[in-house]
Amino acid sequence: MSTAAERVQHEGLRGKIMSAAQAAEFIADGMTVGISGFTGAGYPKAVPTAITEKAQAAHAAGKPYKIRMITGASTADECDGVLARANAISFRSPFQSDPTMRNQINAGDAAYMDVHLSHIEPQVRAGFFGDMDVAVVEVAGITADGKLIPSLAVGTNVTWLQYAKKIILEVNAQQNAKLEGMADIYDSIGLPPNRQPLMLTEAGQRIGSPYLACDLDKIVGIVLTDASDRNSKFAEPDEMSKSIAAKIIDFFSHEVKMGRLPKNLLPLQSGVGNVANAVLAGLQDSPFNDLVGYTEVLQDGMLDLILSGKMLSASATALSFSPDALQRFNDNIDALRSKIILRPQEVTNNPELIRRLGIIGMNAMIEADIYGNVNSTHIMGTKMMNGIGGSGDFARNSFLSFFVSPSVAKGGAISCIVPMVSHHDHTEHDVMVLVTEQGLADLRGKSPRERARLIIENCAHPDYRDQLRDYFDRAEKSGGGLHTPHLLTEALSWHQRFVETGDMRVK
Amino acid sequence: MSTAAERVQHEGLRGKIMSAAQAAEFIADGMTVGISGFTGAGYPKAVPTAITEKAQAAHAAGKPYKIRMITGASTADECDGVLARANAISFRSPFQSDPTMRNQINAGDAAYMDVHLSHIEPQVRAGFFGDMDVAVVEVAGITADGKLIPSLAVGTNVTWLQYAKKIILEVNAQQNAKLEGMADIYDSIGLPPNRQPLMLTEAGQRIGSPYLACDLDKIVGIVLTDASDRNSKFAEPDEMSKSIAAKIIDFFSHEVKMGRLPKNLLPLQSGVGNVANAVLAGLQDSPFNDLVGYTEVLQDGMLDLILSGKMLSASATALSFSPDALQRFNDNIDALRSKIILRPQEVTNNPELIRRLGIIGMNAMIEADIYGNVNSTHIMGTKMMNGIGGSGDFARNSFLSFFVSPSVAKGGAISCIVPMVSHHDHTEHDVMVLVTEQGLADLRGKSPRERARLIIENCAHPDYRDQLRDYFDRAEKSGGGLHTPHLLTEALSWHQRFVETGDMRVK
Repeated sequence: MSTAAERVQHEGLRGKIMSAAQAAEFIADGMTVGISGFTGAGYPKAVPTAITEKAQAAHAAGKPYKIRMITGASTADECDGVLARANAISFRSPFQSDPTMRNQINAGDAAYMDVHLSHIEPQVRAGFFGDMDVAVVEVAGITADGKLIPSLAVGTNVTWLQYAKKIILEVNAQQNAKLEGMADIYDSIGLPPNRQPLMLTEAGQRIGSPYLACDLDKIVGIVLTDASDRNSKFAEPDEMSKSIAAKIIDFFSHEVKMGRLPKNLLPLQSGVGNVANAVLAGLQDSPFNDLVGYTEVLQDGMLDLILSGKMLSASATALSFSPDALQRFNDNIDALRSKIILRPQEVTNNPELIRRLGIIGMNAMIEADIYGNVNSTHIMGTKMMNGIGGSGDFARNSFLSFFVSPSVAKGGAISCIVPMVSHHDHTEHDVMVLVTEQGLADLRGKSPRERARLIIENCAHPDYRDQLRDYFDRAEKSGGGLHTPHLLTEALSWHQRFVETGDMRVK
Repeated sequence: MSTAAERVQHEGLRGKIMSAAQAAEFIADGMTVGISGFTGAGYPKAVPTAITEKAQAAHAAGKPYKIRMITGASTADECDGVLARANAISFRSPFQSDPTMRNQINAGDAAYMDVHLSHIEPQVRAGFFGDMDVAVVEVAGITADGKLIPSLAVGTNVTWLQYAKKIILEVNAQQNAKLEGMADIYDSIGLPPNRQPLMLTEAGQRIGSPYLACDLDKIVGIVLTDASDRNSKFAEPDEMSKSIAAKIIDFFSHEVKMGRLPKNLLPLQSGVGNVANAVLAGLQDSPFNDLVGYTEVLQDGMLDLILSGKMLSASATALSFSPDALQRFNDNIDALRSKIILRPQEVTNNPELIRRLGIIGMNAMIEADIYGNVNSTHIMGTKMMNGIGGSGDFARNSFLSFFVSPSVAKGGAISCIVPMVSHHDHTEHDVMVLVTEQGLADLRGKSPRERARLIIENCAHPDYRDQLRDYFDRAEKSGGGLHTPHLLTEALSWHQRFVETGDMRVK
């Protein structure tokens, strides 16, 4: 592997190599900073810590120092974590999953705007988030003619590089130099009224350049790093996940039999996490071949489908692997380079493409209600967990949209099927199939009351079915409208009971 | 004007001319029937009444008779009205606005699935609503070679004609014969994995044929009619509507000044109703020229912008005029034919085009909450009003998405700004600007608590501001999460209070 210094092949840029502390000098209190990174991949490893040190020094001197930080999606402890612990973030968008950042948000110490991941780039370019003072972007290298080799996440980098007034690059020697050529950077979406169609008609096509580009004069510093991504380990699929996966795969078989899905299905999107990973692992032993992936984050399960030959190609905006999977990826990168396409998240999550390609979207949820509304973000209605991410981009525009969850949490004290969700991220209009380990509810073409009966009987945990039936029965008899019967005084009472007693069950 | 019989120019089809009662014989109990019509335009005028008579006869004989009815959007009394009064509809989708149909839905006598208007066609074609037995479609005429001239609404007709097993046409002599050439029928969206880009880059372009087409062998009956559309009268813009319109137009000016909107704005979408109409009327005297319309339903206000030369062209899926405006339309149809483009609703409302073109979406709401969630469909959480229509298609994908409403209803007894909406149609992620006669709240780039303060101070009626501030203050102090502070026991209490006392105000 080459060193980070060797990867700065553009002669003119070599003079801009500096320490992280020097680079952080470009970042002042109150600035809006665009940071690279998507699901623990491709985030800057050194500059955030240097910013943190500046913040700590300022705070110790009784001076204010906070930045407004906008990323692709989640980063890791070396970025969100260190900055949040130093109380150095005043505003955060569009997605996070760091424990300290989350606590800051829920304590009211940092403002957070939870944004659809396909919306953040165009809205920043349109000026809706104000100026972007500095972009800090990790790359795998800089070519002799000044083109940037993307690292394991493309995310929002195209827009940050275009829109920020100044650019700091981190060149990370840990990122495989052979990533060169894997990305497909289409950087011409622009703003209306001058937009053109995105000319992708298959998930595996390429329409852009393998390189990120920027005005080299905006680069104020280049920082060399040699540090690995977050590389979280996945749990082996457990019985719960396997059960959910099996139900989805059975459903696929049924849809193929009914002529509503092609034999090789349609391009698969899979949310982040163990259940999503289990669904993909389950496809390994399924009757489906020649699969195609079109997803935000490509994780272990999809990698293994490609390596086994079950999946022909996959498009993503980030590669987020466990340490073992990263090894398999690096070992096979020459074969994988043409089969995996890394795109900007504005392309990956674009409604135009999700609708046209007919994606099968599968995302995790916190809870669903009896009418099929889904909460993906809030704990008990008030506390932010992570964010909506791309789940709304995919659910809203997919050919089929699934939401999955175990039917209970906290040892049974929380039902994931409730009378009314405590926060709405995906409305009844956008949710087609709910799946728990108890069963699957196919909500397509059904009225709210038809959906309620199905969800209660098929998806709810047996411990909660009587309680849900009782709510629904009494709501139907309460004298309100019978389109979406509710008891307004009890709709959120399950959450209140949990807050007060630690259990949603009526004793 | 030609008679309806003269408008059936295809010789082979003349033999299929029959009475509405004869045509209704093809429609049996339990069938799924695709009906044309969008916002009181282009719906069949005769066959629904004939179906009603069949239903009444069956019911009188103690036999079941109900159909499953899927339309473009709302129809009128001669369609939804007569069928609902005869209790002849078991299932209705995707949108309705008829008083009797609404009562049937809210009494639990008819199942209703409220669907995004861009979703209904692809989901029907994909088989998610089962087979479509018969389509009943109004046209303005049939050419000698068997092509169909669309009437004042294209709506879902492309898909109904393609997908239904049998077709009944109503040829309506009241529809202007000079409509020939106004429509742009692109009928090749199809199903994944074989979809192509929609090659529209400007709202005024044409990419299809002026005619609807179908397999002529599927036509089982042609019914001749001579009846006008619903043609509801608009109220003259009142002070309330003018005030809301003025605030939106000021906001446009500000955005142009800030460089975030072009001088001629971006293509305008406007929801149905008096406030929407007032916004368009307000643009007549605004400094903006060379406007472009891209909307679902083109109503009086947009017609007059075109007639005055303020607007260059407008794309819609239906033309729904007051009687006076219809006269102006017919008087000027030769000049309007190239400036107005009637498209299938699947094209008009397509996320691909709404996103690409950068639409400014303006839609009415029933209520919004302090965090920017919007309810467009439900009264007090349980009763269906009309449906989400295309508001979700536009809000979700527009460059700017506005929701407008007077700040109070029922003489002040209902606040349109509430702690939590009683039904969620548009989530906090999809709502950019709220406008009431009190003021405008620009929610872009803001966290939930920042939004709450703005919405309470700018949009709520003064009678409710203290009550909202009190809720928000106590929610912040309640010990829950401070990302989206709520009091779970009170979040829906304003609606409950209205149900119990007829007033949301705390006495």
